[in-house]
Amino acid sequence: MSHTVSPLAPKHVPDMPEIPGVRLATGAAGIKYKGRTDVLLALFDKGTAVAGALTRSKCPSAPVEWCRAKLRSGKARALVVNSGNANAFTGKTGRAATMFTAKLAAQAAGCKPADVFLASTGVIGEPLPAQRFDGVMEKLAGEAAPGRFLAAAKAIMTTDTFPKVATARAKIGDATVTINGIAKGAGMIAPDMATMLSFVFTDAPIAAPALQAILSEAVGDTFNAVSIDGDTSTSDTLLAFATGAAKDAPKISRASDPRLKAFRAAFAQVLGNLSEQIARDGEGARHLVEIIVEGATSKKSARRIAMSIANSPLVKTAIAGEDANWGRVVMAVGKAGEPADRDKLSIWFGDTRVAHKGARDPGYDEAAVSRAMKNPEIRVKVALGLGKGRDRVLTCDLTKEYVAINGDYRS
Amino acid sequence: MSHTVSPLAPKHVPDMPEIPGVRLATGAAGIKYKGRTDVLLALFDKGTAVAGALTRSKCPSAPVEWCRAKLRSGKARALVVNSGNANAFTGKTGRAATMFTAKLAAQAAGCKPADVFLASTGVIGEPLPAQRFDGVMEKLAGEAAPGRFLAAAKAIMTTDTFPKVATARAKIGDATVTINGIAKGAGMIAPDMATMLSFVFTDAPIAAPALQAILSEAVGDTFNAVSIDGDTSTSDTLLAFATGAAKDAPKISRASDPRLKAFRAAFAQVLGNLSEQIARDGEGARHLVEIIVEGATSKKSARRIAMSIANSPLVKTAIAGEDANWGRVVMAVGKAGEPADRDKLSIWFGDTRVAHKGARDPGYDEAAVSRAMKNPEIRVKVALGLGKGRDRVLTCDLTKEYVAINGDYRS
Repeated sequence: MSHTVSPLAPKHVPDMPEIPGVRLATGAAGIKYKGRTDVLLALFDKGTAVAGALTRSKCPSAPVEWCRAKLRSGKARALVVNSGNANAFTGKTGRAATMFTAKLAAQAAGCKPADVFLASTGVIGEPLPAQRFDGVMEKLAGEAAPGRFLAAAKAIMTTDTFPKVATARAKIGDATVTINGIAKGAGMIAPDMATMLSFVFTDAPIAAPALQAILSEAVGDTFNAVSIDGDTSTSDTLLAFATGAAKDAPKISRASDPRLKAFRAAFAQVLGNLSEQIARDGEGARHLVEIIVEGATSKKSARRIAMSIANSPLVKTAIAGEDANWGRVVMAVGKAGEPADRDKLSIWFGDTRVAHKGARDPGYDEAAVSRAMKNPEIRVKVALGLGKGRDRVLTCDLTKEYVAINGDYRS
Repeated sequence: MSHTVSPLAPKHVPDMPEIPGVRLATGAAGIKYKGRTDVLLALFDKGTAVAGALTRSKCPSAPVEWCRAKLRSGKARALVVNSGNANAFTGKTGRAATMFTAKLAAQAAGCKPADVFLASTGVIGEPLPAQRFDGVMEKLAGEAAPGRFLAAAKAIMTTDTFPKVATARAKIGDATVTINGIAKGAGMIAPDMATMLSFVFTDAPIAAPALQAILSEAVGDTFNAVSIDGDTSTSDTLLAFATGAAKDAPKISRASDPRLKAFRAAFAQVLGNLSEQIARDGEGARHLVEIIVEGATSKKSARRIAMSIANSPLVKTAIAGEDANWGRVVMAVGKAGEPADRDKLSIWFGDTRVAHKGARDPGYDEAAVSRAMKNPEIRVKVALGLGKGRDRVLTCDLTKEYVAINGDYRS
């Protein structure tokens, strides 16, 4: 919050429509921050379906473990998100804090604790003072109202430099449904780590298993295709809530239902939009970097090579220096461990092919590439010439500000 | 070469004894640098055995491909190493340059090109002007003499801030043999990448297959257990030459020969010493970091977890900030994908246990840990409590200087 807004922030913040069946309220529980909101309560109408994707970390936070267990029912009535404390690596205390928070929210919402979903982001290793939710929870439940998605996105920020919202509409049969999403990105507070949280809300009447299938499919090329620094959070949480309150929309029970085509695309669009915003707000980021790998032996292989490039400190520092250092891209392709033939490799920075068939492209115009590297958005394309596998990931550059944000805060 | 000497440089440079059967010469071929040596010629007596380990990059440099082919014979008579140009990603030109260089050296040394080994480090993607070796090669062969290992280590530096040498002696039977090693570490020149080269010389009479077995065994816990930034070079090359010229030493043909016990330990000691120097000269390094993982399900699992910690930008920036941020260590353990039980995890910074059984250690003294973090050498220990797997890797911190070295040089 203390940092200036990323120069890569979207120029336009969309108006976020109401979602029938969803009411939101935000408040200040004083978990860590002063003078800002730090808790979000979302209430859902009866019959709301839920699906999710959670961190694959072997050391997940207490709320992640809570959500993993509660997702099995596919039902949700409330969501509580706090910023300022991640409730991670907090042992038994952490489990007790999730149970306490869920009970408070359930009382306020008039539901069972098992229908309450939880997410926390912020300091790790410190007990979450969940008693501070006592008192505010009842008040938030009373205030909860439709809309307020931008306020919700603000309440869950840590060191994000801008709130992240996205919205889309889609037809299901003759009815129009709305999908709203909010997210927080890679931010730091002492002592902390990058944490990604995102919550998506829709009035579409989609059963939980179908919603889960759509979410699992969409996450692969959106949130899972973004990397700031290759460090996976203990707290990564994506949850989608479908209230079913859209007027006249047909109830959908199977993911294979052809009427889901437009919804599926709109849902992926919201996730793609939010995940790009996360890359745009990577710590210290000055360039948004799109890595495209094509001609790999498979999409999976293309992903691994793209991630090897996206996570290479040498590639990322070169881009910070606005240097089209394709030699480092070759290095990152080579170290990925995936099939690659040096002598078939071509590399582009922006529209300029800088390397072709395993050597510097003799025709390339250094001046044009240097100009392109000053653009805040950089595209790096690698053609392997082996097969039809293609993939795309987003990242940002590695700047001195990243080191400052993550190394200097105690000094 | 333009950077000030790393504060982590060894305080003492050992005297490097002569190795019977090895003659060295260094010169200035003017490949890139001015006012310094940039080419090393080593000549070996007839009967010298050679073994090696080369980068696993799928996009290796031309000299790496050359060495991989020539290692099969197990015989060496000469080694040519240049700095200033890596001869990597140079296509057919690169292969021609290796052949040309090997022929020149072979003429000068009076041997076959196939008995010449090659390594190059420096700029990538630019053709190596191998014709510049013409003229100097003959001169170097004339000048080659015993000793001069420190000069050899200096000639192969790129942006290393100090030359890296190590030496050890061992008994084989009643004879004493010597092992000398030189290395260059992670350095940058535009447009370049981290490259690791190391050459080890001994007068021990060990047949090539046995030497290869000893080298392969030793490299796992030395060079392969060091990471500066997780970026694997296209040029990594480790070669060991055994001249067999030690007086009265018995000829050893099998790696299982019990008389190799002391030699094996001394050889590993030289490799360990050189690889630690590489970590001490990591770009921008201000702290040498030793990561110990114990209680893993296997050594392999412990290695993966240790490397996940060693390569985490968040762990490395925290250490740069002298912050004992154990939450980020938890994160790195969690993302490694190896068996780990959060609630059995303990973490030490230096001698202080900061986390125990999945939560902050209630007894730990923050002031003592903060003092320890100011030490230029930091030890991070993780106990998983699952099995007997143990491993150790070395790395350094991630500082703004790293970003400056790798991002700023074009500006």
